[in-house]
Amino acid sequence: MTPDSLKELLNAVKEGSFTVDEALVRLRELPFQDLGCAQVDHHRELRLGVPEMIFGEGKSAAQIVRIVTAMADNGSNVLVSRLSIDKARKVMAAFPMAIYHDDARCLTLEQRTQERRGRGTILVISAGTSDIPVAAEALVTARFLGNEAASLYDVGVAGIHRLLARREQLASAGVIIVVAGMEGALPSVVGGLVDRPIIAVPTSVGYGASFGGIAALLGMLNSCASGVTVVNIDNGFGAACAASLINRS
Amino acid sequence: MTPDSLKELLNAVKEGSFTVDEALVRLRELPFQDLGCAQVDHHRELRLGVPEMIFGEGKSAAQIVRIVTAMADNGSNVLVSRLSIDKARKVMAAFPMAIYHDDARCLTLEQRTQERRGRGTILVISAGTSDIPVAAEALVTARFLGNEAASLYDVGVAGIHRLLARREQLASAGVIIVVAGMEGALPSVVGGLVDRPIIAVPTSVGYGASFGGIAALLGMLNSCASGVTVVNIDNGFGAACAASLINRS
Amino acid sequence: MTPDSLKELLNAVKEGSFTVDEALVRLRELPFQDLGCAQVDHHRELRLGVPEMIFGEGKSAAQIVRIVTAMADNGSNVLVSRLSIDKARKVMAAFPMAIYHDDARCLTLEQRTQERRGRGTILVISAGTSDIPVAAEALVTARFLGNEAASLYDVGVAGIHRLLARREQLASAGVIIVVAGMEGALPSVVGGLVDRPIIAVPTSVGYGASFGGIAALLGMLNSCASGVTVVNIDNGFGAACAASLINRS
Amino acid sequence: MTPDSLKELLNAVKEGSFTVDEALVRLRELPFQDLGCAQVDHHRELRLGVPEMIFGEGKSAAQIVRIVTAMADNGSNVLVSRLSIDKARKVMAAFPMAIYHDDARCLTLEQRTQERRGRGTILVISAGTSDIPVAAEALVTARFLGNEAASLYDVGVAGIHRLLARREQLASAGVIIVVAGMEGALPSVVGGLVDRPIIAVPTSVGYGASFGGIAALLGMLNSCASGVTVVNIDNGFGAACAASLINRS
Amino acid sequence: MTPDSLKELLNAVKEGSFTVDEALVRLRELPFQDLGCAQVDHHRELRLGVPEMIFGEGKSAAQIVRIVTAMADNGSNVLVSRLSIDKARKVMAAFPMAIYHDDARCLTLEQRTQERRGRGTILVISAGTSDIPVAAEALVTARFLGNEAASLYDVGVAGIHRLLARREQLASAGVIIVVAGMEGALPSVVGGLVDRPIIAVPTSVGYGASFGGIAALLGMLNSCASGVTVVNIDNGFGAACAASLINRS
Amino acid sequence: MTPDSLKELLNAVKEGSFTVDEALVRLRELPFQDLGCAQVDHHRELRLGVPEMIFGEGKSAAQIVRIVTAMADNGSNVLVSRLSIDKARKVMAAFPMAIYHDDARCLTLEQRTQERRGRGTILVISAGTSDIPVAAEALVTARFLGNEAASLYDVGVAGIHRLLARREQLASAGVIIVVAGMEGALPSVVGGLVDRPIIAVPTSVGYGASFGGIAALLGMLNSCASGVTVVNIDNGFGAACAASLINRS
Amino acid sequence: MTPDSLKELLNAVKEGSFTVDEALVRLRELPFQDLGCAQVDHHRELRLGVPEMIFGEGKSAAQIVRIVTAMADNGSNVLVSRLSIDKARKVMAAFPMAIYHDDARCLTLEQRTQERRGRGTILVISAGTSDIPVAAEALVTARFLGNEAASLYDVGVAGIHRLLARREQLASAGVIIVVAGMEGALPSVVGGLVDRPIIAVPTSVGYGASFGGIAALLGMLNSCASGVTVVNIDNGFGAACAASLINRS
Amino acid sequence: MTPDSLKELLNAVKEGSFTVDEALVRLRELPFQDLGCAQVDHHRELRLGVPEMIFGEGKSAAQIVRIVTAMADNGSNVLVSRLSIDKARKVMAAFPMAIYHDDARCLTLEQRTQERRGRGTILVISAGTSDIPVAAEALVTARFLGNEAASLYDVGVAGIHRLLARREQLASAGVIIVVAGMEGALPSVVGGLVDRPIIAVPTSVGYGASFGGIAALLGMLNSCASGVTVVNIDNGFGAACAASLINRS
Repeated sequence: MTPDSLKELLNAVKEGSFTVDEALVRLRELPFQDLGCAQVDHHRELRLGVPEMIFGEGKSAAQIVRIVTAMADNGSNVLVSRLSIDKARKVMAAFPMAIYHDDARCLTLEQRTQERRGRGTILVISAGTSDIPVAAEALVTARFLGNEAASLYDVGVAGIHRLLARREQLASAGVIIVVAGMEGALPSVVGGLVDRPIIAVPTSVGYGASFGGIAALLGMLNSCASGVTVVNIDNGFGAACAASLINRS
Repeated sequence: MTPDSLKELLNAVKEGSFTVDEALVRLRELPFQDLGCAQVDHHRELRLGVPEMIFGEGKSAAQIVRIVTAMADNGSNVLVSRLSIDKARKVMAAFPMAIYHDDARCLTLEQRTQERRGRGTILVISAGTSDIPVAAEALVTARFLGNEAASLYDVGVAGIHRLLARREQLASAGVIIVVAGMEGALPSVVGGLVDRPIIAVPTSVGYGASFGGIAALLGMLNSCASGVTVVNIDNGFGAACAASLINRS
Repeated sequence: MTPDSLKELLNAVKEGSFTVDEALVRLRELPFQDLGCAQVDHHRELRLGVPEMIFGEGKSAAQIVRIVTAMADNGSNVLVSRLSIDKARKVMAAFPMAIYHDDARCLTLEQRTQERRGRGTILVISAGTSDIPVAAEALVTARFLGNEAASLYDVGVAGIHRLLARREQLASAGVIIVVAGMEGALPSVVGGLVDRPIIAVPTSVGYGASFGGIAALLGMLNSCASGVTVVNIDNGFGAACAASLINRS
Repeated sequence: MTPDSLKELLNAVKEGSFTVDEALVRLRELPFQDLGCAQVDHHRELRLGVPEMIFGEGKSAAQIVRIVTAMADNGSNVLVSRLSIDKARKVMAAFPMAIYHDDARCLTLEQRTQERRGRGTILVISAGTSDIPVAAEALVTARFLGNEAASLYDVGVAGIHRLLARREQLASAGVIIVVAGMEGALPSVVGGLVDRPIIAVPTSVGYGASFGGIAALLGMLNSCASGVTVVNIDNGFGAACAASLINRS
Repeated sequence: MTPDSLKELLNAVKEGSFTVDEALVRLRELPFQDLGCAQVDHHRELRLGVPEMIFGEGKSAAQIVRIVTAMADNGSNVLVSRLSIDKARKVMAAFPMAIYHDDARCLTLEQRTQERRGRGTILVISAGTSDIPVAAEALVTARFLGNEAASLYDVGVAGIHRLLARREQLASAGVIIVVAGMEGALPSVVGGLVDRPIIAVPTSVGYGASFGGIAALLGMLNSCASGVTVVNIDNGFGAACAASLINRS
Repeated sequence: MTPDSLKELLNAVKEGSFTVDEALVRLRELPFQDLGCAQVDHHRELRLGVPEMIFGEGKSAAQIVRIVTAMADNGSNVLVSRLSIDKARKVMAAFPMAIYHDDARCLTLEQRTQERRGRGTILVISAGTSDIPVAAEALVTARFLGNEAASLYDVGVAGIHRLLARREQLASAGVIIVVAGMEGALPSVVGGLVDRPIIAVPTSVGYGASFGGIAALLGMLNSCASGVTVVNIDNGFGAACAASLINRS
Repeated sequence: MTPDSLKELLNAVKEGSFTVDEALVRLRELPFQDLGCAQVDHHRELRLGVPEMIFGEGKSAAQIVRIVTAMADNGSNVLVSRLSIDKARKVMAAFPMAIYHDDARCLTLEQRTQERRGRGTILVISAGTSDIPVAAEALVTARFLGNEAASLYDVGVAGIHRLLARREQLASAGVIIVVAGMEGALPSVVGGLVDRPIIAVPTSVGYGASFGGIAALLGMLNSCASGVTVVNIDNGFGAACAASLINRS
Repeated sequence: MTPDSLKELLNAVKEGSFTVDEALVRLRELPFQDLGCAQVDHHRELRLGVPEMIFGEGKSAAQIVRIVTAMADNGSNVLVSRLSIDKARKVMAAFPMAIYHDDARCLTLEQRTQERRGRGTILVISAGTSDIPVAAEALVTARFLGNEAASLYDVGVAGIHRLLARREQLASAGVIIVVAGMEGALPSVVGGLVDRPIIAVPTSVGYGASFGGIAALLGMLNSCASGVTVVNIDNGFGAACAASLINRS
């Protein structure tokens, strides 16, 4: 839309050949529609389909309480990820209804029942027991976002029979989140077994040449299975957000 | 299936309460069912939902012709990716029906009409004109896999109005593949605009500190938009495979 | 501007309490004003203060001619950077007025005299003779953007007296672009001598542990002189764009 | 000064048309003129236009007090950056007039009113709330150096409308400092919106593949917006120094 | 085994020419035979020849006790590696028979005498005294796995005569594990002296450009001695597992 | 041997209680015994158990012929690795008996029958067809060193059933060399299936974030299977040398 | 010495034309002469010209006391580097004569006066005050090794006049050790001023893209001054050892 | 020269006790004395003790001829390093007296006999035959700079006896340059054998995880031998410059 065509539109409104409502339809997709809501973006759910979520790391308990309050006043459900138990206790003092998910280091406050919106089940699998915190973060997030979700832990590739025994469960999932550290080989094997969208989450589990998850990240990016996509190291939260969008698409 | 249940199954076959064919159905999901077909895995489409595809780089034209022949004899459609024009000419001499997609450096041989299987449209967008080869690879692959697909090129973040003007097109897509080099910022902006699954493809476009696509890759992995997943640098093919699985899930 | 206030504005236009021109003023800052001009963003100069510029690397001569034509038809001056002599010859066949700057690997087409807009002189200095191509790219770009520009080459820190002898010239510049490869130490020394804004450009000149310019880049980012900012490796063009903005600010 | 002009000067001294003292004045601009001032470089403000500043990290409170004392005795204003609250308390015991800026981890001691010397406003914007400490360091430093300065926080690219709504504020700034972690995409978008000099500051905010700010740093160095320059990770101080030089140039 | 041969087998069972047990023998090599034993893989020793071993890092004492209990109930010997003294004390409270190897940070529980199965001696040598913890982990593991093992510490290449004096001991070993940090040169020298299989273990001993063991790792991977293989940084455990397989092969 | 014991030995020789020959036996194990044979180390086979081998890359055909001649005159068998077909032709002109192994880019000259010295079979397996050159180098080298060797190609983890079908072949090997590029996951899976020593060879096969084999290398170093050791990227030769030592140990 | 010449020597001893002592002189340069003294290599000073030195990091106070005791009993002077004040106190309890150098984190025990052996002065200069601990380690070590040594701190390149004023001092040094963090540019400038051997020591001083000293290390390795050599990050000790060898050569 | 001595000099000129020319001589040592002679720094030899040397890489033959001419006219000896044979031929057409050193890729033009200035011999040793070009560059440079120099090639650590046999030669050298690629272990071993200053030169010889010389570089920087200093990868030239300074110090 050029300045000229905008001028034409405004003239048309003036002359009545275009109603105000019709002009509004043409104009309301503009970016500024959310302007009034400042930094706390209450329209985000409408626009992006995700409720309010806060990254807890690097924020003080007081800051988190303040933000959760603003969101809760709006009637939203709220998820706080990467929240230490210490801070969580302080947040829960202010919001007794909130639930802290210990293994996932997440806090959820559900003020209204989250309707189930996803078509299938999001299956979260982990290679080892040390990967469980990241997997649990994905699990809690997926459920918070209105999805059916299940988990399957400790099925890494060095004992491949453990995985093969669950082929049926894998094949029946809507989306599969595969969480693995060390060499990060599990997504390739899973991707070769079933035709489901697979989101790979490298974890920082390992030592030495795992370089805090780089080895797993590179392994997943180079997966020889052609349907695998990858998120940041330890990003169970992001994997669940993506899985949720896929599950509802 | 445990050893016990396997024993029961075998007993049932012996006693006739289960026919051989019924047992076969139960057993054919086992890993060894594809054994007879050696390396060319003709059951892959049944198992993984993707037809035959060959990575052309590092194979001679003669090798490619030999593999395509084996696949074509089986009645399959075939895609060869990362194929130079020189090798493509030799393959097309053997398969006159094949089509070479110049901008995508892909060859397709479609022996039977690919039925449309995806629900929505896969939209491939690129940040710059130099990213088009990777985007085109994604586009050709997405269509080869039975999806409706469209493209939108040169809508990088340094001229954000170009992208904002296409919000509607973005919002109506089933899955969005975002291809970008240099700083790889486009997926974050797109992910903040619409609630569609987004697959980010970093490209090796750039120089100096782009380090052959590492800058874009890291940018995408660290995207502040929470529904973005990432594939390998320049991997338009893999992005389309993942998008196709999502589109059909 | 909220939807409501937009509705009010439109109603005001309809009722005549606001003229179309007044509404246009309110609306023309919106991002969509450039919509009609597609990918070739002719309003960029108005918005960003820079004329048309094309990154020549990775585009064919034919593509470049097509883009230059679109821009030239609009009356713009055009700069093509990172253009090989071979491609330049083809572009100059189409635009005999264009000038190819051999040392800078840039082509300029000046259809109208560029008015001088910068306040001071942009001084481009290089550490060694091998850094000259990058320095020349900065020089050509700075002049193309309407700045007075001068150069001073081969004044690296291993012969510090060469630099000290030019203190006066350094101090009288408006902005200084410092181009250096290898250890990239020159910006720190210059930044310690004069109180001018300094833009450091690392070059890929060097071998071994210069890692294609990484050593120089890191050196510049860690400069102990506190007024130094840095651009990408070999990015003389970007340094000149930034210097030009500074010179006119 | 060339050998010839030096010869002339010496001849003039010999012939008495120039006194020894006059010759000395002409010669004292040579590098050795600051010899007497040892390590605490009191002439730095004259030479470089910046008052006394101390990098607090890695120095003991006692050392800092000693250096501040030497500077304060000279009548200078002093800024100590990267100073923990613990050390700050000890410094403030010695200098009760000093002010500690909590969010910026900076201490300032202003003994004389800093005259306003910059032409325009330095606008500091941050992508997220976690980037605020670095942004605040830039803000405090910019003001300490005699500039008008303003801030705008939490306008990252994943909610692009928040930024677009402030275009006017962006366009009216003299220099813009853009502080961002994670993928570091904000400078590119800002650089595409307005024609102001932009200094990008990557922060170490993020986790996993952000690699302590490398992802943001690379993103900014590869910015597709052509007027962006970059400083070291978390270097709000250096960005403000550069912005101040630009604002006064 | 092809589908056809499977069908034949089933037909044979049906017709009685093959008993159910005979079929079971043929089928029990399938991966699912371990299904019933969940994650604790009691058949691993049969399949892989190694008894139960637990990676202690990142598991709580309670978790470790639970896993050791499950394994011990099965009559197995158990090794817990990378176990801090604090956690070890809690595990030993539950298993008084267990032994904690202080220098190796390993705990072993031997319920039945481990029979000697290796042909030769596994010799563990270290370059410096700081490498001893990693070497000790290898030593304890090698013995736990049923091998004769010996050690030789502080024979680094900067005092080559110390190594040369032990040529005979080196030559008489079955397998040699060489543990070294810093430049990791020892395996090359040892590999040039004797014709034994050598497993190189880089350690994180060093500082600065040792980069936590990367220097040693790269040195070992690039060894000019042609019989050297490498494991992860600080992975004494893995080296001993590999050495044990070699010693028994 | 201490100075004292040396003195005793010399006294014994002087007094005749020890013949010169007996003393020589005692002394010939000293490092200097090979002195006379200069750089071409003909005693290497005795000391290290490997015949003469030349790294062909970066040497001219003339240089290689000269070195092979020196070795051949000594009656040795010779292997030249990493030899281009062009250079190989020139070497074969001089040594018509030599054989060039095209897929492995190796030349062998066998002047005397290599006796079989290894106990078992060295099995070389590759993940993909592009890994075959590296695998073939390992195969040729293993046989040259007197081992029974076999190969199994294209059994990567994305089609895990192809591997599972060959479990028996894997289990019966003496040593297994696993060659894989991209994510390098195959050694972990193989290491979880059988209790054989496994040498993993990462290859430079891949693109983008494979970083020329780094992804595969890191994957293998971080293998969750505990008997895997690793050699340099593309180092099929070194893997075979190590496997040969293991096979004969 | 070839086997033949050894045989001749032995024959000469046998026949008496060579005494045992004469043969011993010929043979005692062999590597095994230090055999008896195990790991504490008391002959190292004779062989390498350096007295006993211990790397204190990663050793317990008890271990250090044990090693120092062994060395001191031999009459040696001893230096312990990288020793924390806590451990130093325990060592000094055992050796009251020992001196702890606080700024250098070194302990020295001088039992006999170290004779001055170096020809010239070793001058240690540092770029900033934060580099002083590394510089002090070099200073203490240089003196311990019998050299005249002096220091010059805080003469970094951003205030180049401070350095230029000391040209004479620089030119009169025998060897110069240049210690610098951040961009590490000082050695290049010094190397361009004087013709003395320069040893550059990068320090881990800095933040962000200094990457713990990598920026300084790379800067120094790429120095455009052609007489600069480099040691590991923070390795003041090693620089002094090298300087001492040079000073005595 | 202090301000006082400058004042005295000027007074002397005024009073006639010093002619203008004499004063000029005294003053031309000031940094600006080279102004007239532009970039070609003819005083460099006086100041730094090294004659004219040109880095040939990245300069055209015409440029090199021009620079050599300027230097030769001044009577200097000239060395051009990193010069391809093609360019060398063109330079030699202009300077028939020049000599091209094929293995070192260097050209020397000696117009006057270089006096021997070094005290001892510079010994250049290389680990492998592929390292010879870098070693030869060091050898030619060392001789050009007026040193006695010798070489010893192919004495890498995997055949340690080859090195041990030359201990005497090592011990009698004034300075030792050790050139090695791959794992770069040779300097550590040499540094443990003799008390000579050692300059280590990593080479880019190797493949895979040698990363173009990084492995060797890191190995050398982490050398456990305490008198080793390091130069850039493949920098034989720089090693010789440093060795020459040491040899004359």
